[in-house]
Amino acid sequence: MSLIVQKFGGTSVANTERLKNVADIVTKTAQAGNQVVVVVSAQGDTTDDLIAKAAELNDHPSKREMDVLLNTGEMISMSLLAMAIQKLGFSVVSLTGWQIGLETNSNYSDARIKRISGDRLKAELDNGKICIVAGFQGLNKMGDLTTLGRGGSDTTAVAIAATLGADLCQIYTDVDGVYTTDPRIVPGARKLEAITYDEMLELASLGAQVLHNRSVEMAKKYNVDLEVISSFTRNPGTKVKEGSHMEKMNVSGVARDNNCARVAIINVSDTPGTAFKVFSLMAKHNVNIDIILQSVGRDNKKSISFTIRQDDADRVGKILRDNAEMLGYEDVSISTKVAKVSIVGAGMASSAGVASKMFEALAMAGINIRMISTSEIKISVLINEEDSEKAVKAIHEEFFGE
Amino acid sequence: MSLIVQKFGGTSVANTERLKNVADIVTKTAQAGNQVVVVVSAQGDTTDDLIAKAAELNDHPSKREMDVLLNTGEMISMSLLAMAIQKLGFSVVSLTGWQIGLETNSNYSDARIKRISGDRLKAELDNGKICIVAGFQGLNKMGDLTTLGRGGSDTTAVAIAATLGADLCQIYTDVDGVYTTDPRIVPGARKLEAITYDEMLELASLGAQVLHNRSVEMAKKYNVDLEVISSFTRNPGTKVKEGSHMEKMNVSGVARDNNCARVAIINVSDTPGTAFKVFSLMAKHNVNIDIILQSVGRDNKKSISFTIRQDDADRVGKILRDNAEMLGYEDVSISTKVAKVSIVGAGMASSAGVASKMFEALAMAGINIRMISTSEIKISVLINEEDSEKAVKAIHEEFFGE
Repeated sequence: MSLIVQKFGGTSVANTERLKNVADIVTKTAQAGNQVVVVVSAQGDTTDDLIAKAAELNDHPSKREMDVLLNTGEMISMSLLAMAIQKLGFSVVSLTGWQIGLETNSNYSDARIKRISGDRLKAELDNGKICIVAGFQGLNKMGDLTTLGRGGSDTTAVAIAATLGADLCQIYTDVDGVYTTDPRIVPGARKLEAITYDEMLELASLGAQVLHNRSVEMAKKYNVDLEVISSFTRNPGTKVKEGSHMEKMNVSGVARDNNCARVAIINVSDTPGTAFKVFSLMAKHNVNIDIILQSVGRDNKKSISFTIRQDDADRVGKILRDNAEMLGYEDVSISTKVAKVSIVGAGMASSAGVASKMFEALAMAGINIRMISTSEIKISVLINEEDSEKAVKAIHEEFFGE
Repeated sequence: MSLIVQKFGGTSVANTERLKNVADIVTKTAQAGNQVVVVVSAQGDTTDDLIAKAAELNDHPSKREMDVLLNTGEMISMSLLAMAIQKLGFSVVSLTGWQIGLETNSNYSDARIKRISGDRLKAELDNGKICIVAGFQGLNKMGDLTTLGRGGSDTTAVAIAATLGADLCQIYTDVDGVYTTDPRIVPGARKLEAITYDEMLELASLGAQVLHNRSVEMAKKYNVDLEVISSFTRNPGTKVKEGSHMEKMNVSGVARDNNCARVAIINVSDTPGTAFKVFSLMAKHNVNIDIILQSVGRDNKKSISFTIRQDDADRVGKILRDNAEMLGYEDVSISTKVAKVSIVGAGMASSAGVASKMFEALAMAGINIRMISTSEIKISVLINEEDSEKAVKAIHEEFFGE
């Protein structure tokens, strides 16, 4: 008998028909002789609807009260799913975050999980019950409700799998796995059978949008086997786990991220401490920096470029203007018409020529590279946004073409 | 400084505008120097909408899961109200049933309150917070969510007032007090300034629909001063409490209950134990019996009549048919075309002539009385349903006419 944790996102539980579909998946898993813990998100637009209701009353409601409000979304979907499973004749119980002893810190709206007491879950599973758990939520030490922020339900599922020592944690979503690139851009994209945690982390942070980094990081830390799988097609998905078979393939995927902006600080003093000043300022304002490029100095002046999230562009512009005197630059230019395209692969570091193959593909397509960043398992280039689809197609063809 | 508990029903918190209105009432009460605990129901149709969603998935969902689902309704209204109050610049905290330590038995969907730990509420009040509490809900000893059934939010409010020793428990509703009779039937009906618990209990059980009996019974037991008041007009409402001033008035109200049916069991054996057989059978099936009338026996046969709730009529008919042999009656007739009209007043018992005055009013209006029941503080008559409005008008004119 295996213990399987299954997580279903908001799209998978959006309405009556889909809840029945999920109930069918869950009960078939149980019928195959497995113990099952199910983690659910709020239905479809529920969270947005609740936020809109709140906004009508208060444009800046406290995060504590917002978390109370949002806690109801998952409670609704978990109890409805439990009823759908009861209808199929199975023994089931729904449990909130606090009922499974999911303790978080007090960072309302973006809380971090501190621990889960598995006692209630274990007792219910031992009793032969299918357990339906509300994702995205927990309780802080003051006994107040919290929510876990983006990717919260995935993280709940992985944390439960880690706590219970589950054999597998399945993340059901509206895509049926992790692809070599976005199938909407490249119709020939191939579904990966398996991928490492690190590759998944790079793909997620690069905009693959399948799994949130927090959950993958936690899965890596506690060695939880993940599977990304579709609740609609029910085909085998993509396994995310440690493994050696990935070495066969140098590159596992091509990712694109259009939520980028490039900041250039032009002609600052070429003296020690200039970069520190810039990036400590960014850190102080919680701006996430990605690629950094510093030009070679000339005439005692240099330029510093870096990429940020496009959402942060206006804010960063203001921060730099407000600190113009302290930084002593000649000019600042911020371009939001850029995109980042990356290749990811655990076998890349040990394989020569991957980078040159990528750059060659871009050159052949006539695409200019504005910045480059490399790590053990990825190579990213910053290019003009209008070229990004062409770039993804060219690179994908280079590495995965027939 | 007084401590005031204010309860707002579903109509009072139905939408954004009404929530703002409630926030205004609550903060004005706080501004006047009072500590305030607010108990809210679910917004307008929320509960019905949730029940409809559940019904799409399961025609007989477990009561445990239904209670989880319904718990969300009050959580939504309490957090929204807290946000509306924050917007006005007041310090406020919303709390669920389990967060205030409201412990119930495990009778899901109709649980009874066992105790409330006032600790969290006292701490928050001492901290200068307005407390918003979800009505209608609690936690059983297994750590599972329950709901309190009909009148649950009123009961929560009274239980909190009793626990904290509040100076007043205001029940805000869509009527502005308790009237001498239903103003929709008799436009000249007068609002009562005050009424005793016992009178309120009789009026509630007779269909006055203002306060649920459970909450009034609890208020009487713990001597909690109640006020029924409108959240729309904000006029002074009706106080419900012990007091002697009520003796001035013999009759405080006229009530009508159309949810009645009359059961006649014709020609049963006129021997000891016959009535016992009938009513123990009803008790076994949880049928509430109201007025009972037994005819004088003749030829060793008698007839037993009693009234029940109209909702129970079909069920009672079946129970009696199923037990025809055991009961040994000649026939059973059940009429749902009846109504009960009653006068209520604490001063009635000591005042001669009240009953005859009531019967005279009915006689003058040409209304036939089919059954009569009296108690210390009320006189009820069963009449044809079609006569019920006329009866209320005639009796009200007799006792309260100019």
